[in-house]
Amino acid sequence: MKRGFFYKMSVGVVTEKSVTFNTELRLDSGRILGPITQVYETYGNLNKDASNAILVAHAWTGSAHLAGKHREEDTRVGWWDAIVGPGRLLDSDKYYIICINVIGSCYGSTGPSSINPKTGKKYNLTFPVITVRDMVRAQAMLLDHLGIRKLKAVIGGSMGGMQALEWGTQFPDRVSSIIALAVTPAPPPQAISLNAVARWAIFNDPTWKKGGYRKNPKDGLALARGIGHITFLSGESMESKFGRRFSARDGQFDFFGRFEVERYLNYNGYNFVDKFDANSFLYLAKALDLYNVAFGYDSIEEALDRISCPLQFFAFSSDWLYPPKDTEEMVHVLEKLGKKVEYNLIDSPYGHDAFLLEHETFSPQIKGFLEREG
Amino acid sequence: MKRGFFYKMSVGVVTEKSVTFNTELRLDSGRILGPITQVYETYGNLNKDASNAILVAHAWTGSAHLAGKHREEDTRVGWWDAIVGPGRLLDSDKYYIICINVIGSCYGSTGPSSINPKTGKKYNLTFPVITVRDMVRAQAMLLDHLGIRKLKAVIGGSMGGMQALEWGTQFPDRVSSIIALAVTPAPPPQAISLNAVARWAIFNDPTWKKGGYRKNPKDGLALARGIGHITFLSGESMESKFGRRFSARDGQFDFFGRFEVERYLNYNGYNFVDKFDANSFLYLAKALDLYNVAFGYDSIEEALDRISCPLQFFAFSSDWLYPPKDTEEMVHVLEKLGKKVEYNLIDSPYGHDAFLLEHETFSPQIKGFLEREG
Repeated sequence: MKRGFFYKMSVGVVTEKSVTFNTELRLDSGRILGPITQVYETYGNLNKDASNAILVAHAWTGSAHLAGKHREEDTRVGWWDAIVGPGRLLDSDKYYIICINVIGSCYGSTGPSSINPKTGKKYNLTFPVITVRDMVRAQAMLLDHLGIRKLKAVIGGSMGGMQALEWGTQFPDRVSSIIALAVTPAPPPQAISLNAVARWAIFNDPTWKKGGYRKNPKDGLALARGIGHITFLSGESMESKFGRRFSARDGQFDFFGRFEVERYLNYNGYNFVDKFDANSFLYLAKALDLYNVAFGYDSIEEALDRISCPLQFFAFSSDWLYPPKDTEEMVHVLEKLGKKVEYNLIDSPYGHDAFLLEHETFSPQIKGFLEREG
Repeated sequence: MKRGFFYKMSVGVVTEKSVTFNTELRLDSGRILGPITQVYETYGNLNKDASNAILVAHAWTGSAHLAGKHREEDTRVGWWDAIVGPGRLLDSDKYYIICINVIGSCYGSTGPSSINPKTGKKYNLTFPVITVRDMVRAQAMLLDHLGIRKLKAVIGGSMGGMQALEWGTQFPDRVSSIIALAVTPAPPPQAISLNAVARWAIFNDPTWKKGGYRKNPKDGLALARGIGHITFLSGESMESKFGRRFSARDGQFDFFGRFEVERYLNYNGYNFVDKFDANSFLYLAKALDLYNVAFGYDSIEEALDRISCPLQFFAFSSDWLYPPKDTEEMVHVLEKLGKKVEYNLIDSPYGHDAFLLEHETFSPQIKGFLEREG
């Protein structure tokens, strides 16, 4: 085995951890949530003064399984394995890397499919509406538990980037640097409208039963995910991936005949049904749409002025869900406030998904930023 | 009444006409359709040599009711009333203006909700898949019936623009000029993907019953239309129309609380259910997606070289459904072929819908074109 290859190896087999806090968290909605379980994974070792921790925040349907495998025989690795591991961008020989499943999700942390201890039944729609800020408040409890006072960095894309921003505004003394990719200070109405029709697709499914299903509402959730995939891609990437090709198995003049892009959305939609809970999908979609970095402040200036650490942003030219111009507006505000901020517009055809696909493009910049500011 | 106002008056009360052809039309799919009923409206008078006819082609969910009212007491006028009437852009004192409901639609012309005379039952999904070219073939039969050999112009936006192009390639000796707005030589995969999820929304509705419903499948069709509305608007127009405002009646932290844009999509979606047949929606969505000006030819050059009259195109800067660049590519091909072609890119925030909203912007150019070329 070559040294170079060996050096940049995977984190290997990892084990999910879990902790439950018998506390009550007051949410942005004014409601109370507790107890709170959070599932997380860590890679590398926390140093003596607990100063080498990096929090990686996941997106909408992500999980704490950031890197490595759960079992040797797994064929798939964690969602951002490409940049996490010994010698990789987020070097587990150097950093203690943490990824926490957000509250509201369905991958172990408390969410609508969890049992409400007060009733002995699933929360379902009695689960409170949560915000990205609520997620971050819960994460701060977990970091206290791990003995981490201050993070070297928080990094994330999309909803992960929103969490990074919330760390900056809500816990300015607990974070040394922020790296946010494909983020927005507040989703524009077009992004909201696309999540709205995705929600509607689930509401329309009679097997959803106002959230009281036993089995995930298959058709509605698959369609909702199909709509999501449209927003993750771009016109450009659809052109090169599918063009106007017709599905090889279907007849062009069959009523149910499908274009290749249609087949792709169907396939990925139904594939998702076994992976993600419909109610979690709805609650997190809502958290995304409600996201506003300025929530609770008189202005975006007042909100962003709370941040005291350097920030690095990445936007992607073909991301039409969270368009670069919205990141740029936020960067201008930060610059005016005299914050240390770096902005990178990556020319990419991959749309919103670019933050997961363009890691070879942005890794050198993140590496430099972490070395300078982390 | 002032002269100026009087001069640019409405066509007033108009009556729908209908004709049934006891013929069999061979479709692009190879299947046969017949008899064929077509509903149409006309405004103005055909002159002696039948040389003043203009065909206006409607879009997806449009009808033959182009201008005026059906009854004096109607509060709404035809879909493009703003440009049709005495002294208006399409001057009914000068031209004989015709608008024909396309086959496949539900406003009187033969479509999936028509009775199949061979079975005595509604066609539903036994209706053949039709193409825009098929629609135009049926229209040519109607023009024969009206004694119109050659049209002064064919004008239309979106699917109406596609029909205008098909007139040019299929009946080059029967049209003197083509005016196409917000058109595309073939919808790009992103546009197809958005129609695909709209179709999926109807398929998911159990009351659709594989097209065999008695009552329009309400929830599925409303959602499909909601998705459509996203594609008709632009990010820009959504910003100014809705921004991130929350519906005044809903609580921000209510699970079913809606953003204003969400409420708009809901409202317009459910409003549509009483207006349009779900199966027609599906068949016409398919015709849109299948549309390819080059269908059946070796190249787009071969197809467009069949056109022998001048063409005028309008594209709208914020139309992301049928992006201006696709119109521009077609214009370049036409220019290379030595065709007389005029291209206008209108800077507009209204997205695809601009072809219905920007008439004050494009009317002078169309007027000039008609005077020169019509």
